[in-house]
Amino acid sequence: MNLHHVIEAQQFDVPTMLKLFDTAAKMETVVAGGGITDYQNRIMATLFYEPSTRTRFSFETAMHRLGGHVISTENAAEFSSVAKGETLEDTIRILNGYADVIVIRHKEVGSAKRAAAVSRVPVINAGDGAGQHPTQALLDLYTIRKEIGTIDGLRIAMVGDLAQGRTVRSLAYLLSKFRGVTMYFVAPPLLKMKEDILEHLREHKVSFVEETALDKVLPEVDVVYQTRVQKERFGDRIADYEKCRGVYIINQDTLRGMKPKSIIMHPLPRLEEITMEVDEDPRAAYFRQAQNGLYVRMALLTHVLK
Amino acid sequence: MNLHHVIEAQQFDVPTMLKLFDTAAKMETVVAGGGITDYQNRIMATLFYEPSTRTRFSFETAMHRLGGHVISTENAAEFSSVAKGETLEDTIRILNGYADVIVIRHKEVGSAKRAAAVSRVPVINAGDGAGQHPTQALLDLYTIRKEIGTIDGLRIAMVGDLAQGRTVRSLAYLLSKFRGVTMYFVAPPLLKMKEDILEHLREHKVSFVEETALDKVLPEVDVVYQTRVQKERFGDRIADYEKCRGVYIINQDTLRGMKPKSIIMHPLPRLEEITMEVDEDPRAAYFRQAQNGLYVRMALLTHVLK
Amino acid sequence: MNLHHVIEAQQFDVPTMLKLFDTAAKMETVVAGGGITDYQNRIMATLFYEPSTRTRFSFETAMHRLGGHVISTENAAEFSSVAKGETLEDTIRILNGYADVIVIRHKEVGSAKRAAAVSRVPVINAGDGAGQHPTQALLDLYTIRKEIGTIDGLRIAMVGDLAQGRTVRSLAYLLSKFRGVTMYFVAPPLLKMKEDILEHLREHKVSFVEETALDKVLPEVDVVYQTRVQKERFGDRIADYEKCRGVYIINQDTLRGMKPKSIIMHPLPRLEEITMEVDEDPRAAYFRQAQNGLYVRMALLTHVLK
Repeated sequence: MNLHHVIEAQQFDVPTMLKLFDTAAKMETVVAGGGITDYQNRIMATLFYEPSTRTRFSFETAMHRLGGHVISTENAAEFSSVAKGETLEDTIRILNGYADVIVIRHKEVGSAKRAAAVSRVPVINAGDGAGQHPTQALLDLYTIRKEIGTIDGLRIAMVGDLAQGRTVRSLAYLLSKFRGVTMYFVAPPLLKMKEDILEHLREHKVSFVEETALDKVLPEVDVVYQTRVQKERFGDRIADYEKCRGVYIINQDTLRGMKPKSIIMHPLPRLEEITMEVDEDPRAAYFRQAQNGLYVRMALLTHVLK
Repeated sequence: MNLHHVIEAQQFDVPTMLKLFDTAAKMETVVAGGGITDYQNRIMATLFYEPSTRTRFSFETAMHRLGGHVISTENAAEFSSVAKGETLEDTIRILNGYADVIVIRHKEVGSAKRAAAVSRVPVINAGDGAGQHPTQALLDLYTIRKEIGTIDGLRIAMVGDLAQGRTVRSLAYLLSKFRGVTMYFVAPPLLKMKEDILEHLREHKVSFVEETALDKVLPEVDVVYQTRVQKERFGDRIADYEKCRGVYIINQDTLRGMKPKSIIMHPLPRLEEITMEVDEDPRAAYFRQAQNGLYVRMALLTHVLK
Repeated sequence: MNLHHVIEAQQFDVPTMLKLFDTAAKMETVVAGGGITDYQNRIMATLFYEPSTRTRFSFETAMHRLGGHVISTENAAEFSSVAKGETLEDTIRILNGYADVIVIRHKEVGSAKRAAAVSRVPVINAGDGAGQHPTQALLDLYTIRKEIGTIDGLRIAMVGDLAQGRTVRSLAYLLSKFRGVTMYFVAPPLLKMKEDILEHLREHKVSFVEETALDKVLPEVDVVYQTRVQKERFGDRIADYEKCRGVYIINQDTLRGMKPKSIIMHPLPRLEEITMEVDEDPRAAYFRQAQNGLYVRMALLTHVLK
C-alpha cells in the first residue's frame, strides 16, 4: 500500500480500504494503550481556510496520539497579514519547508487537488466546499464494517439531503465497490440523490431504491444514515430550505421500526433531525462514528508518513 | 483525594485544598527543574467560547510543563463551520473521543456544569460568564498561604467591584472555611458585596466589616485584594460605571498606609486601579499570583488525570 | 556568543552573524535527520498582535524541530477578554511566568523593544509594524551566503519599494558591515531608498548606485532582491500606489538579462511582481530563502535558550 496524497474518495480501491481499516483497528489498541511517540519528529500542518474545530481537533488528536507535533491555523486566509492575494500554490510551497504532512480545508471545490499538484509532502483533503471530504467517507465505511461486521450485502438507507450532502454522495460511491449492497435513497423531491451517482450505480449494477417515506424502509435496513439539511447550501432559497428541513426526524418511533441489530449514523453536527432521546439507544452509533474518525485519521497519517 | 470535574469553588473542602496546595508546591520544583514528560501521552483540549489568551496560556503551559499535548481553540462557537446550533452537550460528547481532559470557558453561567454532566473525561471550568472561575479562587488562596504563611487568622480587604466580581465572591466563600478570618469589604454603595455572601458569612460566624474608605482598613490587613471595576458587566449603565471606576486607586500613598509584611493582590488584568509605581514594591504580589496559577493548574491536572 | 533579546538587525555584528550562520547550517543537518528532542522541556510563546501565519509557522516549526513546546495566539489584542486596555508590559510580565522565550509581532514600531525592557526571558521581534523584522534580514543574508558562497564583494540589486520596505532597509544596513559590497537601488522616484540609509552607506564608504531601470543593472549583479509594493503602507494614497505597482516585473525577459550564477530573492508573499514562469528557473531562490528562515530561527532559538 503506497498512499501519498488523500484527495478524494474515488482514489481508494477495496484492498486499500481494507488495509487502512486494519491499521485503524490497530490504532484503537494504540489509543487504549495511551498513544505512542514514534512520530515525535514529524510535523503536521492544519491549514484551514474556514474554521471547523471538530475536523481540526480530530486530525490534531490523531497526530498527537502518534507523538507528533502540530502547527495550526483556522485563519489561513490570513496566511500573510500583508498580502491577501498570495496563491494557494505559493502557500503550499512554503509549507513544504515546514511540515511533513499538510491537512487542508478550503471553501473552493478542487483546492486540495491544486495543493497536491505542487506539494512534495502529502496533502490530506479535510473538505473542500461542496466537493470532497474523503476521510469522512472512510470513517463512515470503517464504522459500518465495525458495527455490522461486514460491508458486503449491506442494506443502507441514506436519508435527508442527498442532493447536496457530499458525505452521502462519497459514501454511495465507495459502497458501490463492495458486493451485494442495496441502497435506499430517502429524500424529498427537492433533495433527491443526483443523476450522476444513480447513473454510476446502474452502470456497476448496484441495487438502489428511491423512496420518500422513511418508515417503509426502516424494517429492511442495517444502517440508517441520517443527514442534516444544510441551510448554508440553499443560499437565499429560504422557502425551499423550510420545506425540506424536518421532513425526516429520527425519534423513538423510528427506533421502534428498526431492526434490533441495525445502527443509526450521522456525520454530525446534528440539529433537530435526531432527537436527544435516541442517544441512549445502543443503535445510536453517531458518537462512536465520530470517535472512529480518530482511528481512521491516525491510520491515514501513518500510511502517508511512511 | 479523588478529584474529577472542577466546576465551582464550593466543591473544595479544606483538606482537598491543602492537598492540592502541597502538589502545587511540588510543581514549583518541577518547573524550576525544567518540567517533566510523565504526561506525554495525554491530551488536554482547551474549548474557549470566548477568547482569553491569558487563562488559556496558563492552562496550556501547565499541560506542556507536564509533558502533555494540547488541542486548542478560542473560537469554539465555530466548533462546526456548518451548524452553529450544535448543543454544548454534543460537542462535549465528541471531545470525549479526543481528549483526556477538557478545559472550558463559556459566556453562559452553568455551562461547565452542563458539560460535566455528559462528560466521561474531567471537565475544568475556566470561567463561565458571571458565574464561577474556580481555578482563580484556588490560586488566590494558594498565593495568600505562600506569601503570608497561613490562612487561619487572616485579615483581608477586598476592594472595588464586590457586587459583580466573581473572583472576590468565590474567594470570600472559600476563606469562610478557614479559622479566624476577618474580611473587610471596601466598595462604593453601588458595588457592595451581595447579601447572599454576607448571609453565608453570618451563618458560619465569619467576621466581616463593610467599609467605604480604603485608608481606614489599610493598617489592619495582611492582604489588599484589589479588583477592577468591569465596564462590561455594567452593560449600558455607563453613568454608573463612570461613578464607580477610579474610586479606589492603589498607589504610593496606599503603600505607606499598609503593614510592611502585607501584600497587594489583583486577579489581573489591571488598568488604572493599581499605578505602575507600585510594581516595584515587594508587597506587590499580583505577578507572582499569576505565576502561581501555573502551579495550581499543574496540580489540578495531575489530580484529575490520575 | 551571548545572545538574549533579538530586537533589531543593527544589534548583530559580523562575527555574531557568522557564528549564527554556522549554527543554522548545523540545523539543516538536524532537520534532514528528523529533528531533535533536546528542547522538550522548553516553551516558546508566539504573541502575535496581528495574524501572520507564515511567520508564526516558521517560528513554531523551528521550536517543534528542536523538540520544544509552543503556546500560540494570533489574537493577542484579546489577551484578556475583559480588558482591552492592559499594557504590553503587563502581558509580557505575565508571560514570563509561562514561557522560556517570547516571539512577538505587533503593529507598532518599538513594541519589541518595550517588551524586552521588562522581560527576563528572551524576546524575539517577529516584526513591529514598519519597524524591524530582524530574523528576516538574517535569513536573507544566510541565503545569500549559502547560494553565492560569500557576502564580501557582493553586487546586489534591491528592487521595488525601497522607501517603505523594512526588509531591504535592514538588509542594506547589515550588508554595509561586509567588505566590497555594491548595492543598486532600483526604484521609482516615489519609492526611493531613504536618505538615512544612503547617509549611513556614504559614512561607511559602501558603494551604491541609484537607478530607475532594472534591465541596466541586471548583467552586473549576483542577487536581484525583488520586493512587493505594499498597498497597506500607502494608506489612502491609492493613486500613488497604482503608479508604483507593476513598474518592475521579473519574468522570462528578466531572466535572460541576468548572470547564470545569480539568484532572485523575495521576502514573500509575492503577487504579480515575479511571474509564475520564473519559479522553475534554478536562479529562483525565494522558496529556498523561506526554507532558510526555518534554519536561522532554529539557530536563534538555540542561542537565546542557552
